[in-house]
Parts: sequence; structure tokens; C-alpha cells
Amino acid sequence: MSAVFQPLPDARAGCALCTQPGGISLWQDAAWRVIRAEDADHPAFYRVISRHHVAEFSDLLAPERQRCMALVCRIERVLLETLRPTKINLAAFGNMVPHLHWHVIARFDWDSHFPQPVWGARQREVEGGAAARLGLPLATLDACVVEALSARD
Amino acid sequence: MSAVFQPLPDARAGCALCTQPGGISLWQDAAWRVIRAEDADHPAFYRVISRHHVAEFSDLLAPERQRCMALVCRIERVLLETLRPTKINLAAFGNMVPHLHWHVIARFDWDSHFPQPVWGARQREVEGGAAARLGLPLATLDACVVEALSARD
Repeated sequence: MSAVFQPLPDARAGCALCTQPGGISLWQDAAWRVIRAEDADHPAFYRVISRHHVAEFSDLLAPERQRCMALVCRIERVLLETLRPTKINLAAFGNMVPHLHWHVIARFDWDSHFPQPVWGARQREVEGGAAARLGLPLATLDACVVEALSARD
Repeated sequence: MSAVFQPLPDARAGCALCTQPGGISLWQDAAWRVIRAEDADHPAFYRVISRHHVAEFSDLLAPERQRCMALVCRIERVLLETLRPTKINLAAFGNMVPHLHWHVIARFDWDSHFPQPVWGARQREVEGGAAARLGLPLATLDACVVEALSARD
């Protein structure tokens, strides 16, 4: 189930996403890898990361962009169907680490930052922790994500 | 050059993006429209908005998603080539208005929030205002965006 992170031969020495997993490694193919971020406030938080160092989404060729967003959408569908979140949030910033990665986050009207982005101001404390309110264990959610990513087109 | 905003017959009465332009209307086709957000801190801030009410990116069919991201990329390329920003930020949240819209934002290492997302904590004041530092007038930038969106495939 797990995908062991291995830097590629063209890894950039100073780049955190070239040299480190950046979360719990779940899946990879030749071009993309998927991790779950370890965020106690937003436990259903995945990232689709380019395995090669590229900064901007439009630096990719159209078929690579389509593949990338297809992976993002597979994760999004799993989150929608298993968790029934209030909203999905998608984002590619890279201000801190300019190595293309997409955030895919299930948001809930009860979560610590809703309706602000997870990078915005905290709105409330969630008693008992967010993971306990998801309705299923993270290991089960991870397994559903990996299954969806591994499915043939 | 401008595109006059007109609610569609299937507009949802309570939805801000079904009923209002949400910024300066620049371009539209049958399925998508593009506005420039009026954000003094981040003047090179555009949005690609679904003309029909849909909440999640994965609610679209694959060809619709590809069209949407092609429009996002056309704007991104204009911003990269005309402004040479530090980074482009892309995001689709919809926590406040669950009607699909993509933020496309040119970010600069000198801007008010960098390296935080524009929804994060302010990092500094920009003397003289951000628009004055862009290097070209917003009307010129808008014209380049509209030309790129209007180009044939």
C-alpha cells in the first residue's frame, strides 16, 4: 500500500519536495506521487506532487496537466463520497517550495478554519480533534485514495 | 473588450456568482467567464468562473475540466510572461460561495502577504501600492489576458 519515497537522479539539492517525502507517502507512478499531509486540524488533506522539479502548472505539457488534474479529481471524488464534506479545496501555490504540488483538502463547516482557507485565521477549536469527527479511520481513507489512484482509466 | 455580465436563465437566486459579476468582467464564452478581482494588495488577480452553477471541480466532465484548466493556463502564461512574478498561485475553494471559480494570482516576493497565501497573514506594507510596482498598467494587462483567452486553440 505504501510507496517508499526515493529522490530521483534529477532531484534539486535545495528543494524540500525533491529530497523529502513531505508527508505520508501513499502512491506514485513515473511522474506523480501522492502523500497525506499530517495536519491535525485538517486530517483529510492530500497532496499530488510532481516527481520532477517544475515550478508552474503551465510549465507542463497539456497531457501532463490532464493527468495531474485527473489524479486530483480521483482524490476529490473519494473525499466527497466517503466523507461528505462541506466543500473540497484545491490549491497550487508553491510560494515556500516552488515545486509543483496540488493540495486537495476536505473541508467541513465545523472545522477549525471554515469558511476561511486552511491558511487563513483560525475560527474555532474542535473538541476531541478533527480526525475523530471524520467518520472513518485515516488508514481506511488512505486505502480508498490509493485504490482510486491505482484504478485503470 | 469588456464582457457584460448577464445572469443565465438557470441562475440560482441566492448565489453571488450566479447573480453578480464578482469583479471586472473581461471575457466570456458559453460555459466560462473571466473577471479581474479588485484587490489593491494583489492587483494581478483574475478568476475563471463557471457560468453555470456547479460546486466541485470533479462535478465537471473531463472535457469541461480540460477547457477550464486551459483557460487558467492561458491567464497564467500571460502573467508569467508580462509580469515575471515570483510565483503563480492557483486555487479553487468556494467555502464562501460554493460556485466553481478558480483564482489565478501573480505573486511577488515584495507583495503584502508573500510567502503566505493572499488569504493568510499580512507580512508587510507596500509603499506606493502594489499596482504601481507591476511594471505595466492594469488595463494593458487585462487586454493581454483577453487576447490570450480569445486566441484559437
